[in-house]
Amino acid sequence: MQAKRPSKEPEVVDHRTRVGRERRARTQSRIIEAALHVFAGKGPDAPVIEDFIKTAGVARGTFYNYYKSTDELLEATSKWLEDDLIMSIEAAMEELNDPVERLTTGVLLWMKKAESDPAWCAFVVRVRHHGRLVERQLAGDLRAGLRAGDFSFPSLPVARDLVIGTMREAMSRMTQERVPKTHAEDVARVVLQGLGLDSRMVERALSRPLPKIRRLARSIE
Amino acid sequence: MQAKRPSKEPEVVDHRTRVGRERRARTQSRIIEAALHVFAGKGPDAPVIEDFIKTAGVARGTFYNYYKSTDELLEATSKWLEDDLIMSIEAAMEELNDPVERLTTGVLLWMKKAESDPAWCAFVVRVRHHGRLVERQLAGDLRAGLRAGDFSFPSLPVARDLVIGTMREAMSRMTQERVPKTHAEDVARVVLQGLGLDSRMVERALSRPLPKIRRLARSIE
Repeated sequence: MQAKRPSKEPEVVDHRTRVGRERRARTQSRIIEAALHVFAGKGPDAPVIEDFIKTAGVARGTFYNYYKSTDELLEATSKWLEDDLIMSIEAAMEELNDPVERLTTGVLLWMKKAESDPAWCAFVVRVRHHGRLVERQLAGDLRAGLRAGDFSFPSLPVARDLVIGTMREAMSRMTQERVPKTHAEDVARVVLQGLGLDSRMVERALSRPLPKIRRLARSIE
Repeated sequence: MQAKRPSKEPEVVDHRTRVGRERRARTQSRIIEAALHVFAGKGPDAPVIEDFIKTAGVARGTFYNYYKSTDELLEATSKWLEDDLIMSIEAAMEELNDPVERLTTGVLLWMKKAESDPAWCAFVVRVRHHGRLVERQLAGDLRAGLRAGDFSFPSLPVARDLVIGTMREAMSRMTQERVPKTHAEDVARVVLQGLGLDSRMVERALSRPLPKIRRLARSIE
């Protein structure tokens, strides 16, 4: 229920605008959901507009009201995934300050999201998308953990390759085979080891309870 | 120079057969070299026959004498890369028995090959090809190192994700930016750490001289 609020526009126009906006958001959501599946299946380069129209079940004209090209839709889908990620994982990590705790939590939540959302997982694997925000925060945590003497690795880029590469490969395998319940934790463990965290600290990092995720559901509104 | 060998066929036919076989091998080599570049640039799904014909500079009819489809060519290119890898890296590792030494050597030689052969590197990154032989040998080394108590990781598949994923990501970065001279060693270091090798053993593994590589040059003959 929405509280009644004062408006200079007449009620009926406000209502129409809102309904129109909602319908627009629903259609866009439908196209992007379809795009997620198409890109996940065919990769970023192979799909044609026809693929998206068919999968989304919208008219060609409707499609072009939203996106002009495959590239534009890929861009929008990536952006939307990043927003979705920010809302779910980043929000949960907001209050964490310790870089080891942040990194561990990030890896665990990311892998759990991949488990709970196979379409998202397949898209990230195929399109090799990882948002700039994720990269920036990861770099910050790696640097801080190295400075604190908790991590030990030869260079920031290679440490990043380890984190992103291991997770991506583990996600790629998830699209092809069943993984055990401990999958997220197993991945976090080898990643933390790879970053040079000593075994006692690895155990401690993995024994902490995970913060609550506010939302994992998809929506672009 | 070839030693003269007895043959039931007349010399001239033998010569002709050999010349024909050599020409065939050269054309095939040219098509596969072209395919390597095309797949590296466009990924495994996007290319069409026209792309390969243009890049290789062969007639359409000639092309179809060798490969019937994009998929068949992708298969052949992957197979050829694996053969190439076996000849170069596997041969160099033949005499190594210790799993830690084998794994370290494998990672170092693989990364150095990626550095010395950008087209190979780009292909492996884009097509996500890794031969079954490589997978089998990697699994063997991981299992042996775990059993010997040198490695410490929660599961074989996740250890594999760490090795393959980190290397793939490091190679992907090599296709986009310059990497320092220590790149191969840096990658090997975080991989060994990730597998739970203690720091003294990591140093020892990385200080060993690399075996000579018999060939890194490409040839499908």
